[in-house]
Amino acid sequence: MIEQAGTGGHCPIDSGHIDLAALNSITYGLYVVTARDSERRNGLVVNTVVQVAGEPCQVSVSVNRASLTHELVMTSGAFAVSVLEQDTPLEFIGRFGFRTGRTYDKFERVRFHDGATGCPLLDEYTLAHIEARVRTAVDCGSHTTFIADVVASAKVKPGLPLTYEYYHKVKGGKTGKGAPTYGIDMSKCSTEKKGATG
Amino acid sequence: MIEQAGTGGHCPIDSGHIDLAALNSITYGLYVVTARDSERRNGLVVNTVVQVAGEPCQVSVSVNRASLTHELVMTSGAFAVSVLEQDTPLEFIGRFGFRTGRTYDKFERVRFHDGATGCPLLDEYTLAHIEARVRTAVDCGSHTTFIADVVASAKVKPGLPLTYEYYHKVKGGKTGKGAPTYGIDMSKCSTEKKGATG
Repeated sequence: MIEQAGTGGHCPIDSGHIDLAALNSITYGLYVVTARDSERRNGLVVNTVVQVAGEPCQVSVSVNRASLTHELVMTSGAFAVSVLEQDTPLEFIGRFGFRTGRTYDKFERVRFHDGATGCPLLDEYTLAHIEARVRTAVDCGSHTTFIADVVASAKVKPGLPLTYEYYHKVKGGKTGKGAPTYGIDMSKCSTEKKGATG
Repeated sequence: MIEQAGTGGHCPIDSGHIDLAALNSITYGLYVVTARDSERRNGLVVNTVVQVAGEPCQVSVSVNRASLTHELVMTSGAFAVSVLEQDTPLEFIGRFGFRTGRTYDKFERVRFHDGATGCPLLDEYTLAHIEARVRTAVDCGSHTTFIADVVASAKVKPGLPLTYEYYHKVKGGKTGKGAPTYGIDMSKCSTEKKGATG
């Protein structure tokens, strides 16, 4: 079990007006983040993967604290990222994004294999795999930001990555209630299953 | 002066093969991150801004530890993000991305104003402003990941954000040596000024 830095509580700050639409200008991709604790495998859709350092090579990802995937990352100390391709069907995204793995095996009828860390890596609709071991977990309130050493990575196939903008504007996708960006682009987005967090 | 969590040192990890091309599948935007310590203002170009939590609303950004901007964020505890628009000229990006503010006033002949945190906000080529107060700073080796409360934000104008992919593929832009992603997409990228970190 890894320990957490940071705190999710509020602290006194000087502030101006916060317009959430400003945060909508940030560019994201879409990914399935997976984790495993012995025979329990789970994964969820996130938009928060970023390479944060080159030396040593580290990535970060923010994961909703209520999710089963969060629990598995905390106990195992590792996660994997499958980078989704632009043509990923909404049904496939919905399998990982709008249902909780607590009552449903998300990997049933999905092609995958276990990587060097033991985390499941998707073999469908995936451009690349990145596996990482958590170095620091920062409590961010609704989410934990995991900062992790890349320990294995592979390009699976060429192609365009699925961006958050393409998912919303072209595919008509929705934002899950468990996402950091939930509530921002409300004109186009609503949840299918309120309260379901991966 | 804020304190840091985490460590930049290496630790023993089980690892597989690391193909850096896999990390090239991550989607990013491009931003100017600015900071100010009394009358010293500086900023640098990054691709690492992400909203990491919704409640409380927090963003993270990874900044090269050798940069003047890093020094100013560490001493002031705040930073601002100006989200660049797709049509931002390469010359403007180069002003903030490939020169160090230690020997050069990056804000000379640039339109800006100071925000609620005192950090400079760009008034040119900018779609949105986000100001944040640092809650946690994580030492990631070459970079520090700052996790921060959003204390003010504003949409400046409509338009398409400049993505990292567009910058490289359409505009022919290059990756600075100070970026986490430096060395990854080498077929198209090289530095203009080696060792210059914002």
